[in-house]
Amino acid sequence: MRLGIIGSGMVGRTLAADLARLGHEVVIGTRDPGKLEAFVAEHPGVRAAPNSEAAAFGELVLLATNWAGTREALELAGADNLNGKVVVDITNPLDFSTGRPALALGWNTSAGEQVQGWIPGARVVKALNIVTADAMLKPREFTGGEPDMFIAGNDAEAKGEVTRLLESVGWGVVNLGDITMSRSIEPLAMIWIVHGFNSGWTKRNHAFKLLNR
Amino acid sequence: MRLGIIGSGMVGRTLAADLARLGHEVVIGTRDPGKLEAFVAEHPGVRAAPNSEAAAFGELVLLATNWAGTREALELAGADNLNGKVVVDITNPLDFSTGRPALALGWNTSAGEQVQGWIPGARVVKALNIVTADAMLKPREFTGGEPDMFIAGNDAEAKGEVTRLLESVGWGVVNLGDITMSRSIEPLAMIWIVHGFNSGWTKRNHAFKLLNR
Repeated sequence: MRLGIIGSGMVGRTLAADLARLGHEVVIGTRDPGKLEAFVAEHPGVRAAPNSEAAAFGELVLLATNWAGTREALELAGADNLNGKVVVDITNPLDFSTGRPALALGWNTSAGEQVQGWIPGARVVKALNIVTADAMLKPREFTGGEPDMFIAGNDAEAKGEVTRLLESVGWGVVNLGDITMSRSIEPLAMIWIVHGFNSGWTKRNHAFKLLNR
Repeated sequence: MRLGIIGSGMVGRTLAADLARLGHEVVIGTRDPGKLEAFVAEHPGVRAAPNSEAAAFGELVLLATNWAGTREALELAGADNLNGKVVVDITNPLDFSTGRPALALGWNTSAGEQVQGWIPGARVVKALNIVTADAMLKPREFTGGEPDMFIAGNDAEAKGEVTRLLESVGWGVVNLGDITMSRSIEPLAMIWIVHGFNSGWTKRNHAFKLLNR
């Protein structure tokens, strides 16, 4: 399928490479496509373009920005280019200003809700924010069973599309409800991050699984 | 060991029964010990007493109250009776007033922090709040591997004691840091609760596990 990626940092590039490898056509959005020349040359199926073009190209768009740059990146993408589109919000509203990871917001709001508010015509689905970029499309690499991805969003059909994409690579998918459930999913990313941070990042290859009895 | 339990609802009673079965001496605290006569008769090793007596008795005290009643229960227990004690905070600051579960507070505070503030001489450890009461001491009932319990608290020795207790029954234990990490662990309880709520409570036997790759 045609995928647009907003955000050309480590997360955006890793997703672009892995999605192209899975056979998708990918446009990765960036302020300066020239900076991605070498990356694009190494990854057939990936093209670099301004965020507006990535947004317009994608049947499904992945938002993989640093939190501080998210609103501006979406403005550059253009809300009109995202109308009706499924936008997978991978962001975490992180604040490292104290020297240890914290959430910049939470409880009665969330990044997911803010993103949905900035692009009201898009169908935002919170997903993929609770693992490292390199594992987002490789859940089968985890041992001990199928890991689970928690998702949230206001549009059932959009969540269905994201569920199919995630299940196709090997995630179990748990739909928690509307986009306000990002208020719980983003703190789960904090558990992932703090567990890694506490280990001096020797632990960065974990994912969550729901067990039953 | 000698255990005190503050809270005589479903969670407190289930913990009392399971801890006594494991061979511990248990005093369950309640406003009205008479109401627990039948329960105590059925559970050798469990005694019912006012919260103050449960607090004074326990080498380790488990706090298993409804959030709305927590502060008053701790006042009845008496902060002096908890000085120096390890207090396992199992509470979740739940608000069901909208008809669906939500957290009454979060992000820049947590139940764990509030509890620690109300009993400043105690060594509070957040734990056990992310599973149903009946599974708190029976993690080996889960299939697909050893489930993980996330804990947080300011006192390393107290976390060590709680870790030994949890590991002895079969939990993997992940120490996330100081009591402010309750800000992430309580939203994880929300994921547990909402997943159950969304299923009409047909799903209430889940626990979390960290996978690796």
